[in-house]
Amino acid sequence: MSQEQLDIAFHPHSIAVLGTSGNPLSLGYNFLAHLVNYGYQGRIYPVTPKWEEILGCPVYPSLTDIPDSVDYVICCLPAARIPDFLRECPGKGVRVVHLFTGRFSETGQAEAAEQEQALLRLARELGIRLIGPNCMGIYHPAERIAFGYDFPTEPGRLGMFFQSGATCTEFIYYTSIRGIRFSKVVSYGNALDIDESDLMAYLCQDKDTDVITSYIEGIKDGRKFFETLGQTARKKPVILLKAGRGKVGAEAAASHTAAMAGSLKIWEAAIKQSGAIHAGSLSDMIELAVSFYCLPPIHSTRVGVVGGGGGQSVLSADEWEEAGFDVAPLTQDMEEMIRQTMPELWWGWIKNPVDVSLLPVDAVSAGLNSRIMKMMCQSDHFDLVVVNIGVGGPFDKAIFTEYLRNNVEEIIQVAKMNTKPLVVVLDTGAMGPKEFDNERWKSIAEASSKLIDAGIPVYPSSGQAAASIIRLIRYYQWRETVG
Amino acid sequence: MSQEQLDIAFHPHSIAVLGTSGNPLSLGYNFLAHLVNYGYQGRIYPVTPKWEEILGCPVYPSLTDIPDSVDYVICCLPAARIPDFLRECPGKGVRVVHLFTGRFSETGQAEAAEQEQALLRLARELGIRLIGPNCMGIYHPAERIAFGYDFPTEPGRLGMFFQSGATCTEFIYYTSIRGIRFSKVVSYGNALDIDESDLMAYLCQDKDTDVITSYIEGIKDGRKFFETLGQTARKKPVILLKAGRGKVGAEAAASHTAAMAGSLKIWEAAIKQSGAIHAGSLSDMIELAVSFYCLPPIHSTRVGVVGGGGGQSVLSADEWEEAGFDVAPLTQDMEEMIRQTMPELWWGWIKNPVDVSLLPVDAVSAGLNSRIMKMMCQSDHFDLVVVNIGVGGPFDKAIFTEYLRNNVEEIIQVAKMNTKPLVVVLDTGAMGPKEFDNERWKSIAEASSKLIDAGIPVYPSSGQAAASIIRLIRYYQWRETVG
Repeated sequence: MSQEQLDIAFHPHSIAVLGTSGNPLSLGYNFLAHLVNYGYQGRIYPVTPKWEEILGCPVYPSLTDIPDSVDYVICCLPAARIPDFLRECPGKGVRVVHLFTGRFSETGQAEAAEQEQALLRLARELGIRLIGPNCMGIYHPAERIAFGYDFPTEPGRLGMFFQSGATCTEFIYYTSIRGIRFSKVVSYGNALDIDESDLMAYLCQDKDTDVITSYIEGIKDGRKFFETLGQTARKKPVILLKAGRGKVGAEAAASHTAAMAGSLKIWEAAIKQSGAIHAGSLSDMIELAVSFYCLPPIHSTRVGVVGGGGGQSVLSADEWEEAGFDVAPLTQDMEEMIRQTMPELWWGWIKNPVDVSLLPVDAVSAGLNSRIMKMMCQSDHFDLVVVNIGVGGPFDKAIFTEYLRNNVEEIIQVAKMNTKPLVVVLDTGAMGPKEFDNERWKSIAEASSKLIDAGIPVYPSSGQAAASIIRLIRYYQWRETVG
Repeated sequence: MSQEQLDIAFHPHSIAVLGTSGNPLSLGYNFLAHLVNYGYQGRIYPVTPKWEEILGCPVYPSLTDIPDSVDYVICCLPAARIPDFLRECPGKGVRVVHLFTGRFSETGQAEAAEQEQALLRLARELGIRLIGPNCMGIYHPAERIAFGYDFPTEPGRLGMFFQSGATCTEFIYYTSIRGIRFSKVVSYGNALDIDESDLMAYLCQDKDTDVITSYIEGIKDGRKFFETLGQTARKKPVILLKAGRGKVGAEAAASHTAAMAGSLKIWEAAIKQSGAIHAGSLSDMIELAVSFYCLPPIHSTRVGVVGGGGGQSVLSADEWEEAGFDVAPLTQDMEEMIRQTMPELWWGWIKNPVDVSLLPVDAVSAGLNSRIMKMMCQSDHFDLVVVNIGVGGPFDKAIFTEYLRNNVEEIIQVAKMNTKPLVVVLDTGAMGPKEFDNERWKSIAEASSKLIDAGIPVYPSSGQAAASIIRLIRYYQWRETVG
């Protein structure tokens, strides 16, 4: 098993960056810069014969020149130089090597594929485990190890194993804005040695990881993979995005990570059977990650919806229903409360979804919508409360902004009661620099961030919220049936 | 026909706002403010007995006190006062009245529904046409008439008729960020008199309108509607979002605009048969509007994809293929050009989609990706060129930002050749205030805006781009078959 070696890779006392450089356009430079920038606390050894000091670190001409032992190596050497380097590893105590180096089997060249296999044989002889080749390696915030800029420094509970490095980085960027933080992340490329099943098994037993996401182009051993997936899904949600699904996509996957892609239908069926969650696209996986990360288990589908205007209420009723939710009627208590608060308005007109644009402005100012929200959260008749925030009211910036701020405060107060899963639907739109300078859009972005910072999941649409949350409910329902 | 009256409504020489107010929380105030803010050039007559001057406009105690004739009235009076007001209209030459006033049939009360019908009979007796009730009325940038703040002042070519006012406003907000501008827009609410078919027929013959979008909860006369839809779809693309599709959604629609919603399946089939384009959600309609607004007719499905990293290339191949596109192989010319530019790299490795992360940094800097883009645009082998922009590279802000700026300039240069429809896939993410202050995210937002300002459609994902553009292709293919 690779657990012990992965422990070393995630908790190294020292890291050497082989083939580093002072040129900011080289990856060797950037891997070193990440360790320095993120404040990695172990010993850092840049290795290259061409430089003496990079980023304030003294440089060693070769691995053997390092005066101490080395736990973990990030290798950016050209392919041809890797065998010699590997042979030096045992003498320095190196147990795990991350090969950033690419241009192996993914090139489609027989010679390069043979070279890759020879590396595997050599590593096995030498007792060294390999991550990669052709990948970005490890992001482990708890140890301040990262492979990209602007990654969150504080750790969280999402574990990831991604075959593509850039997609891994993008997923971290897009989900960290949405409030997600990370336990252990691996970009693993061609999976020559340590593969997707090893990484999943590791994240399965990792007590810092609550939810797992994965981007996979192809697997080396289907039986091992689906066995591991089935075991893992029984313990934690595993969300899988399968890429290389079509004819051209599969060819592209072969060029990218030398993966044999396989038919989508087989994949979907096997993922479903194992109990894992199948993501249809990267944006679908982002919404699923937000749902599984931010929400507790939900066991049934009765949803109460409040907020936004008439059109948004109608569309959200459609979208929650279409996803499989029960948009349950308001309870008698709630109807009575509304009747008493607004005797002049009540004709059984206010329903679930509660269209707040029907309420007079003074009733909204008096907090009627937050009372409805609160009652929904306290009621046994709902399993989930959804707050719609509309951006299309008829008022000018000052009024809109004040209303939105109050609304956000009310939502955060209700969420703090912690009585019921509560989510917000608010589309911040594709803002550009002009919107950054516009008070209306700025307040929308601020509202979204405030809610996210308070731990409340915020979705761009009812449809996306419903499609991901229904899979969360089905997952936990399935978990109950399998004990 | 209502064409003559709608001409008056869109080109009034004078507008009276009945039931206006100096209170910024009232809609009467805001309708007046919109006319003043947008620089409406006709005469503006605020009418209310309670104020003397609002926003610098002298106020008239009643319609009859206005010293001149009035073409168009925006009415915010309470329901009970409308009959008396309508009787004063013919004396002032009023031809069209927009009733913002709500709480009619949408309340579900028999009495209110009767009151609404009585208004219709009265208006017909008096020769007055009604827009609404329960709606926001007209946005017509060419005449500087608007019903919301921050609407674009310059006119464009998208016509809209929306049953929901707030949804109409939100659609304008989200699509104007995406580069769309508007010809004539109507929020028409309960459609008591002038209905969806009248508005569609008007936009069909309107020479300033190239593309039509509509949000509909229910229709009064199905036969008239689908006849008009069929005629209009033969002349211009009509994109329809049907709301009130489920059980609860239909009830919500009845409460919102008194609409009888009807089954989604019947709607979808009828829309399809008429040749119009069915939008599945508001965000789907946004992408469809961007596609039909920004792209010329495209007649076939061969797509060339360039840019982004490996994962993005694999996923985009999947998503374009799944939507029905042919991700066609690179031509021999292009393969030869790549072979000559990078003799050390070429093993038939570069395919369509072109993964630029396979190219050495200096080849990218030397503009190889823009030459590939250019060749795709000039080649007869592609009908559409897609440029992926990834945000997940390994470089720090300064390098990333410079690369992105150059990339955007190259794309704009290639697009200016105007040889082939060209689109960009770039997800700007759900940015918050922290991202506004981050150079990386700022440069992503700037890139998106620059491309949009250059008239290039920018989509948040390959899946959304492909799903909307395939419907554009199918639409124009259908148009050819019906002559």
